[in-house]
Amino acid sequence: MRIDLNADVGESFGRWQLGDDDALLRIVTSANVACGFHAGDPATLVRTCAAASAAGVRVGAQVGYRDLAGFGRRFIEVAPDDLFADVVYQIGALDAIARTQGTRVRYVKPHGALYNAIVHHQAQAEAVVAAVRAVDPRLPLVGLPGSVVLERASAAGTPVIREAFVDRAYSADGTLVPRTQEGAVLHDPGQVAARAVRMAVEHEVTAIDGATVAVDADSLCVHGDSPGAVELARAVRSALDTAGVSVEAW
Amino acid sequence: MRIDLNADVGESFGRWQLGDDDALLRIVTSANVACGFHAGDPATLVRTCAAASAAGVRVGAQVGYRDLAGFGRRFIEVAPDDLFADVVYQIGALDAIARTQGTRVRYVKPHGALYNAIVHHQAQAEAVVAAVRAVDPRLPLVGLPGSVVLERASAAGTPVIREAFVDRAYSADGTLVPRTQEGAVLHDPGQVAARAVRMAVEHEVTAIDGATVAVDADSLCVHGDSPGAVELARAVRSALDTAGVSVEAW
Amino acid sequence: MRIDLNADVGESFGRWQLGDDDALLRIVTSANVACGFHAGDPATLVRTCAAASAAGVRVGAQVGYRDLAGFGRRFIEVAPDDLFADVVYQIGALDAIARTQGTRVRYVKPHGALYNAIVHHQAQAEAVVAAVRAVDPRLPLVGLPGSVVLERASAAGTPVIREAFVDRAYSADGTLVPRTQEGAVLHDPGQVAARAVRMAVEHEVTAIDGATVAVDADSLCVHGDSPGAVELARAVRSALDTAGVSVEAW
Amino acid sequence: MRIDLNADVGESFGRWQLGDDDALLRIVTSANVACGFHAGDPATLVRTCAAASAAGVRVGAQVGYRDLAGFGRRFIEVAPDDLFADVVYQIGALDAIARTQGTRVRYVKPHGALYNAIVHHQAQAEAVVAAVRAVDPRLPLVGLPGSVVLERASAAGTPVIREAFVDRAYSADGTLVPRTQEGAVLHDPGQVAARAVRMAVEHEVTAIDGATVAVDADSLCVHGDSPGAVELARAVRSALDTAGVSVEAW
Repeated sequence: MRIDLNADVGESFGRWQLGDDDALLRIVTSANVACGFHAGDPATLVRTCAAASAAGVRVGAQVGYRDLAGFGRRFIEVAPDDLFADVVYQIGALDAIARTQGTRVRYVKPHGALYNAIVHHQAQAEAVVAAVRAVDPRLPLVGLPGSVVLERASAAGTPVIREAFVDRAYSADGTLVPRTQEGAVLHDPGQVAARAVRMAVEHEVTAIDGATVAVDADSLCVHGDSPGAVELARAVRSALDTAGVSVEAW
Repeated sequence: MRIDLNADVGESFGRWQLGDDDALLRIVTSANVACGFHAGDPATLVRTCAAASAAGVRVGAQVGYRDLAGFGRRFIEVAPDDLFADVVYQIGALDAIARTQGTRVRYVKPHGALYNAIVHHQAQAEAVVAAVRAVDPRLPLVGLPGSVVLERASAAGTPVIREAFVDRAYSADGTLVPRTQEGAVLHDPGQVAARAVRMAVEHEVTAIDGATVAVDADSLCVHGDSPGAVELARAVRSALDTAGVSVEAW
Repeated sequence: MRIDLNADVGESFGRWQLGDDDALLRIVTSANVACGFHAGDPATLVRTCAAASAAGVRVGAQVGYRDLAGFGRRFIEVAPDDLFADVVYQIGALDAIARTQGTRVRYVKPHGALYNAIVHHQAQAEAVVAAVRAVDPRLPLVGLPGSVVLERASAAGTPVIREAFVDRAYSADGTLVPRTQEGAVLHDPGQVAARAVRMAVEHEVTAIDGATVAVDADSLCVHGDSPGAVELARAVRSALDTAGVSVEAW
Repeated sequence: MRIDLNADVGESFGRWQLGDDDALLRIVTSANVACGFHAGDPATLVRTCAAASAAGVRVGAQVGYRDLAGFGRRFIEVAPDDLFADVVYQIGALDAIARTQGTRVRYVKPHGALYNAIVHHQAQAEAVVAAVRAVDPRLPLVGLPGSVVLERASAAGTPVIREAFVDRAYSADGTLVPRTQEGAVLHDPGQVAARAVRMAVEHEVTAIDGATVAVDADSLCVHGDSPGAVELARAVRSALDTAGVSVEAW
């Protein structure tokens, strides 16, 4: 019984601080480090990579749309050639910084609206896969099971890391309940921790309608940009440890 | 008798085109490719690296201040730690793109106001040297002979490429005549080409006051962001070829 | 017989020049000046407003998505409250600059992907109308006849300027033929000029399938970002003048 | 006995929150609202102006260098024509937003490195004064007593608001002790509040060497970007009220 635990870090920008990266890096095994397009100025990335390196946490490139004002959370109809270039650029920038801090980029996880878009947007999904493969065909890509992006990545021979969300409600068909719907986000640490353990051990979760849904995840995503989120992440980690699940990088 | 010929390319940005990169890549042996901070969106960098790779021209990272509106031509009092991170970020971003196009970053040349600042600004010069060395201690740095940045680079063991400017007037002490002074920039292709040959063959140039000044240059810089500039660059290349100077990457 | 002639200007950014604004300002009666979000740094706006003011050409605010890299041509799913604020911000910024140059913003024309989005995107259309009205309920809004944005503007009491495109093919239902379809853009100055005159005088145009389509336009849009485009704009103006159409700001 | 109390607000940007604006707007009488160049996205400015308007707090334009990554705290050698345009643009943008929220820009206060630069940088000081005057010759400008910018503003007939810093140590010559020097910033609320009262009532302060220095200030600046800063601002306001000083906008 093994599972990876990932979280977003390095999302500060200049004067603006976001998230408790130090706390998260003591909890997770994979750190999705922002790359400067939606968040993360270079000096922040240096500090984040240094901290991840010191904590023995695996660094991933959290690539996003070029949209600081929108934090990468707004869909942008970027042309595939531009998106290819944007993704290569971001991975390379972070990897150079990571290497100066004794580590390197070991996977790629798209961020925010890009993550959501490439669940279904074929042209953008293909551009992301092509970019990751152009950098390194062995570089794994994190995504939602069943998404177009993971399907294309697998077909191309790129390793995929299937991800589940410990604090999100699932529908009976295995998709996430949209955030706009009531009950979409879970806040109780005990409940969330129990779901995480069940995901890791039994590979299933109870959907919002009570059905049991299969969840085949290589990595569980936790959040950290609020005090409550860190507490929740800590509860998840602790419950996994207690349950005898080996929490380790994929 | 050998000399390298370098020029700035990849300085378009999105909808905005700048310079005749295709023409320049048939003339020079080293291409200073912008890295996105003062110019050069990622898709432009892909196209530029592909063209340089196809033309057999060496790619260098033209790192600059984060200032699209000012095209990197305005001094910014960036703190050393931030500048270190900005330079590593830019080199890494371009290098990843270059590698996807069959080439890689083989040297670093600071751009515009940063280039000028680190002639004398010790903290910024040290940050640039530290950044280049952190990426790769063998990565050469292009700069002005006598500059603080080249002095620090040499002292640290980083290879330096000393550069001369074929279309700029020199003072009797070997420094460049400031652009604000009359006669600082030369426009006659024949005169400029003759100076280039003399720089490459005799390692000297006639200063603005008529004195003869020693110029020890490994690379000659030509410009290309105007039709006249390309013609001038072509005249320089042609004159060097005719004079039997081997024009090749350093 | 009267018609307004409008074109995009002020779309340079820092070092990057775009379009022949001086030529256009001798042809058109309304100048859609970029506002800094998709193009147009403040110093460019000062020069453009000064030139428009000197030429007696009416200044409009060409508001766009915040996307320099994409030149405002990529749809962005901006939330209505953010779009409202972005539009007010842009109008105010340009208006202040215009006033320092002896003129002011007299209308608003959304740019690029925003223009296209609010033909049908209700939430964004409403945000744009609300923003324009919040600045000044009498400020006219330029758009496509039949678009959601003009419909909402009219319903709210905001003056609307209906626009036709002299160099674009029309479908039999009065909509524009998509640019991806062959024949969508016309390049022959004589043909385009004749269409412009027919639009202004007879309020109709021949569709791509040969049908006659009604075109009720208050303003005709010409382009100017290529030498051929300026020539075409000049042909349109000349033909309108010759036909006795009074070309004047709406 | 009257004094104005000012603080920086509206310095959030998109996802990133900064400062406790709601708390500050209950304490100060003048709100220096960021204008988007160093901080403050348009939606933040809408919320901030609405809150200031509701609180009856005067809105000022906190204009800065175009430098989000540096938060406007890094000197940039902007050319005077560009700075003129940047300042007009920012004032106009904020004023349009302020007017949609029932208020308007009533003064201008340069931010960060620009504020410091125009204490002595003549060309930039003149550009700022020219910009403010071009928008409205009656618009007051906040600055440091004795600075070049206030001198030029006064000479031109622009109203000036002389500012003192309640939590900064003064030298015997009336200048601020540089932040790099020990004791430059005061943190004790009681001590700071007492200094504020003495500044407002007796127009003097004890310098770092014990000398008594004259302080002729129309406005006192308090900070608010940390919990301690808000507490300190509250102590200042309370002490001024208790001392019978009328705290009101200039």
